[in-house]
Amino acid sequence: MVVDGNTKLSVYSLPKSVRWGSGKLYILDQTQIPFNIIEERQENIAQVWDSIKRLKVRGAPAIGIAGAYGLLLGVKDKINLSSDKFIDELEHQAAYLDSARPTAVNLKWSLTRMVKKAKSLKGKDADIIYKNLVEEAIQIHEEDKNLCRQIGEHGAELIKEGMGVLTHCNAGSLAVSELGTALAPVYIAHDRGVKFYIYVDETRPLLQGARLTSWELQQAGLSVTLICDNMAAHIMSQGFVNLIIVGADRVAANGDVANKIGTMGLAILAKYFSIPFYVACPYSTVDFSTPEGKDIVIEERGEDEVTHCGSHRVAPEGVMVRNPAFDVTPNELITGMITERGIIRPPYDINLRETFRHPSSAGLHSF
Amino acid sequence: MVVDGNTKLSVYSLPKSVRWGSGKLYILDQTQIPFNIIEERQENIAQVWDSIKRLKVRGAPAIGIAGAYGLLLGVKDKINLSSDKFIDELEHQAAYLDSARPTAVNLKWSLTRMVKKAKSLKGKDADIIYKNLVEEAIQIHEEDKNLCRQIGEHGAELIKEGMGVLTHCNAGSLAVSELGTALAPVYIAHDRGVKFYIYVDETRPLLQGARLTSWELQQAGLSVTLICDNMAAHIMSQGFVNLIIVGADRVAANGDVANKIGTMGLAILAKYFSIPFYVACPYSTVDFSTPEGKDIVIEERGEDEVTHCGSHRVAPEGVMVRNPAFDVTPNELITGMITERGIIRPPYDINLRETFRHPSSAGLHSF
Repeated sequence: MVVDGNTKLSVYSLPKSVRWGSGKLYILDQTQIPFNIIEERQENIAQVWDSIKRLKVRGAPAIGIAGAYGLLLGVKDKINLSSDKFIDELEHQAAYLDSARPTAVNLKWSLTRMVKKAKSLKGKDADIIYKNLVEEAIQIHEEDKNLCRQIGEHGAELIKEGMGVLTHCNAGSLAVSELGTALAPVYIAHDRGVKFYIYVDETRPLLQGARLTSWELQQAGLSVTLICDNMAAHIMSQGFVNLIIVGADRVAANGDVANKIGTMGLAILAKYFSIPFYVACPYSTVDFSTPEGKDIVIEERGEDEVTHCGSHRVAPEGVMVRNPAFDVTPNELITGMITERGIIRPPYDINLRETFRHPSSAGLHSF
Repeated sequence: MVVDGNTKLSVYSLPKSVRWGSGKLYILDQTQIPFNIIEERQENIAQVWDSIKRLKVRGAPAIGIAGAYGLLLGVKDKINLSSDKFIDELEHQAAYLDSARPTAVNLKWSLTRMVKKAKSLKGKDADIIYKNLVEEAIQIHEEDKNLCRQIGEHGAELIKEGMGVLTHCNAGSLAVSELGTALAPVYIAHDRGVKFYIYVDETRPLLQGARLTSWELQQAGLSVTLICDNMAAHIMSQGFVNLIIVGADRVAANGDVANKIGTMGLAILAKYFSIPFYVACPYSTVDFSTPEGKDIVIEERGEDEVTHCGSHRVAPEGVMVRNPAFDVTPNELITGMITERGIIRPPYDINLRETFRHPSSAGLHSF
């Protein structure tokens, strides 16, 4: 299938941020993409700790998956222990791995799920428990892939022939698993043979759009047009953008969306130019304990990210810096939320709760 | 006067992009700011040609000023020629210097004015003509300073105690002369002792905000907060921005404004957050031969500027790029235009022409 200069089928050639094969764990080193593509075999749990710490694996769900597999490496040589001692060791190793990124909710969630699984098998031989833990880790991974695929199936309906689709940051395969969230509809539509154009914001300060999203879309055979963040308005004004899809870090109960810095600006531009603006995220990203976006604390990161591009200084010494990592898009600017249960429309304060009445299994994206 | 951690008086310590002293021409090498501050003495016209070509001097008015002085270097050793031969040589050198940046309207304008001055003195001794040309170049420079000061005086009224003022790109001392255009109100208000905060967009891809505006504001004793372009919406949403002032490359007869890429996005955000959005420019920037903004051709620059930060590559090979250098802000988004004749308000199609009925001397900023 050849679409628009795009040459390969997408889904099967997507990069894998985390891969488990024949009892071995591999992590794609995202700090080096797109310049060096290195899939690094993880020899032990200490190496996984280091890979998480150094952001070789990033994106909350991907970290959770890496954590589940990484925990296996910490106990695979302990299957001669008694059942109780094995579980003790597992808990010990889980606490250690969790310390690599203590604020990563998904990491804690997956490690807790692994420990809980082991405890449910208390009294069984350690090698039996270990085999079950391998299955549990694979299950966590598969659940995430399925969520992404469902998001992709629902969202792909929005992408029509000839459209221009704009995305921001990286909510794709590298951050999640397989299809990603915001990029899942793009991959599915591409697989279905829909011809469209994709624009990627470079996403300062860390340039995830330029470095990661451009690259992963290329790997899937899509041809990508990269722009600086401040070019989006001009590109929209010229009619090149017909749809915007972004990911979400957290959705408040009223539908306000916290996501990578720059998302709110895009949403405001989209409103001005009457372009549909969608947020793609698993339903579990909705945090009902947060009533409104203003209740979300925005992380302010270090100055160097703004005064530098990578290691290259771009601003004078002594300048002050603001570096909010996220912003909060007001619900009124969001056309719809693409979830694994379908596309949720306004009013979000009602419709998010309505959908929530029918619980599904919470996944890696839960709070 | 100590304002807000700002320690020095502004105007007198501003950097000079072009300086003429004791018959010598100096150009501040803007390609090295803020890392190396080198005022380079220009030995001959070939060196000035090179400085313009290599963007050591940038900003249309500053290039025009450098051109006028640079032309003097090309003929200062020719004052023993006959009047006619001296003027021939002057025209020859002017054509040469103009070739350094053929699209720079201001360069052509100032060189033409110099040649015209010489022709008005045809028959006089060459050394007399040369002395008059020195005065003409200084006059061009002084007229530009005065324009900027008048813009600053009018615009400073908008800056109130405690405000946050946001600007984009560099429309300051480095691009123009002395006070600049968009920054002139900032400098005048600072001089008057008004305490306010100034935010600067880094302005990808060439980072004029990070590299140049931050630095020149620091030189004037202002403390600056630098943000990435995509952070503006968040900073506005938090109430930190009360006024936006940008420059203009060209204003259409209906008030649409072509300016550095990213300007239109800011204007749309300003409308959403009800923040006043002003354009500061000499009245001569209004081009009545261009009825509307859509008639302005937007220069698309090379891919490397987007795929790189400076010399540092940030995107994969093979990615496509859009790199519009300017965008066009619709007149409906502009609260007012700060000109040397005062602040012009909507409706611009009427009020721009109304102001134009009373012509003043066109300056370096003319089309």
